[in-house]
Amino acid sequence: MPLFISFEGIEGTGKTTQISLLAQRLRQRSGQVLVTREPGGCPIADTIRAILLDPTSAGLVPRAELLLYAAARAQHVEEVIRPALLTGRTVLCDRFIDATLAYQGYGRGLDLRMIGDLNRLAAGPVTPDLTLLLDLPEALGLQRARRRNTQLALESEERFERESLEFHQRVRLGYLELARQESRFRVIDAVGSVAEVAARIGAAVDDFLQSREGR
Amino acid sequence: MPLFISFEGIEGTGKTTQISLLAQRLRQRSGQVLVTREPGGCPIADTIRAILLDPTSAGLVPRAELLLYAAARAQHVEEVIRPALLTGRTVLCDRFIDATLAYQGYGRGLDLRMIGDLNRLAAGPVTPDLTLLLDLPEALGLQRARRRNTQLALESEERFERESLEFHQRVRLGYLELARQESRFRVIDAVGSVAEVAARIGAAVDDFLQSREGR
Repeated sequence: MPLFISFEGIEGTGKTTQISLLAQRLRQRSGQVLVTREPGGCPIADTIRAILLDPTSAGLVPRAELLLYAAARAQHVEEVIRPALLTGRTVLCDRFIDATLAYQGYGRGLDLRMIGDLNRLAAGPVTPDLTLLLDLPEALGLQRARRRNTQLALESEERFERESLEFHQRVRLGYLELARQESRFRVIDAVGSVAEVAARIGAAVDDFLQSREGR
Repeated sequence: MPLFISFEGIEGTGKTTQISLLAQRLRQRSGQVLVTREPGGCPIADTIRAILLDPTSAGLVPRAELLLYAAARAQHVEEVIRPALLTGRTVLCDRFIDATLAYQGYGRGLDLRMIGDLNRLAAGPVTPDLTLLLDLPEALGLQRARRRNTQLALESEERFERESLEFHQRVRLGYLELARQESRFRVIDAVGSVAEVAARIGAAVDDFLQSREGR
C-alpha cells in the first residue's frame, strides 16, 4: 500500500537530514522511496520556488505569495507525488499543505479557511497518511538554521529567516495547533542529537505502520 | 474620478496598438494614464509571466497555470493598479480577470465558479469600470498574431498560439458570453483598419464617460 509521509516544522529542526535517514531505513524495508520537497520538487515548481525564496522578492504581497505556493503545489502533486503513489512508491515530502497553514495562516495572519480552500484546490485528494512535525523552540531552530546557512554559504530560505522571532513563534504554535486538530500528525521532539531524533521518528513510523496493518 | 479600463480579446485583435492609441487620446483629455498588461505589469509578475508563456512550460498542469495567473494578478493589483487609481490616474490594462475566465474557464474547461473565486481573491475589490472586448473571428486573429510574431521574431504568446483553432473559438465564444452577463462590457468589432477600430473604441469610451457623468 503506497505511503505518503510529510515532514513539517520551523527552520532548523533538521528535517532534511531526518528525511534522508528515514528514506534509507524505509528503502531497506519496503523498496522504492521518493524524497521530494516543497516548494519545488519538479522544474516548474522549482522556478516558482526561486521567486518565493529570493530575498529581492521582498515586495511580494501576502496573497501573491500564497497563490504561488498553491501553484507550485498543484504542479508538484500532479507531476511527481501522485504518479509516484500510483506506482506504489513511498513518498517523503519536506513540507506540504500544513506549511502553508502554519506560515501564511498562523505566521502572516491570512485567513485559514481561504488557505484550506487553496490547499484543496492545489493538492486535490492527495493528503499525507502521516505527518511528522519536528518541534523545537523557535530561538533554537533559527540559531541552527543561521549557523547552517552561514557554514554552507546557502542562500536558501533567507527570506523567511529574516522574519522576526515572533513570526517563527506564531508558526510553531500554529503547527502545534494543527497537530491537535488532525489525527495524521505525530509531534516529534527535535531537541537532541541527529541519532536521538532519528530514533524517535523511527518509533513513530513503526507505530503508524503497525496500526495501519492492524486496521 | 479615476477610471479603470480593461481590454480583452483573443490573440491578434490588435489590443496593444489600440491601447496605445486610446492612451494618447485620454492623455490629451484627462491627464495621467497608466498602461499596463497581464500577466505581468511589475517585476515579480513579469517573472511569473515568463513561466506562463514559456513554450518549455508545456507540462504546466491547468490548475497550476490558473494559480500562477492569480498570483501575478494579486501582485499587479496591489503594486500597480490600485496605487495608480488611488492617486487619480486612469489605468488601461491589457487583459484582466475576464481573460482567466475566457482562457482557463471556457478554453480549458476549468470550473468557472472556482475561477471566479480566485479572481476575487487575486483582484480584491478592484474591478474594471469598462471592459472593451475586441472581437474578431478566431481564424483571422490567429493569422494576424502569427504574422506579427514571425515578423518581429517574438516569442511572446507562443504557448497559446500553439493551441488549436477550436480552443481559440471556445475562448472567443466565452468572451462573448461574459459580455452578455456583465454590463461593464462593450463589444468592439475588431475587423477593419487600425483607424476604423480606434474610432469604434473612441466612440464607446466617449459614450461610457458621458453616461457616467450623467449619473
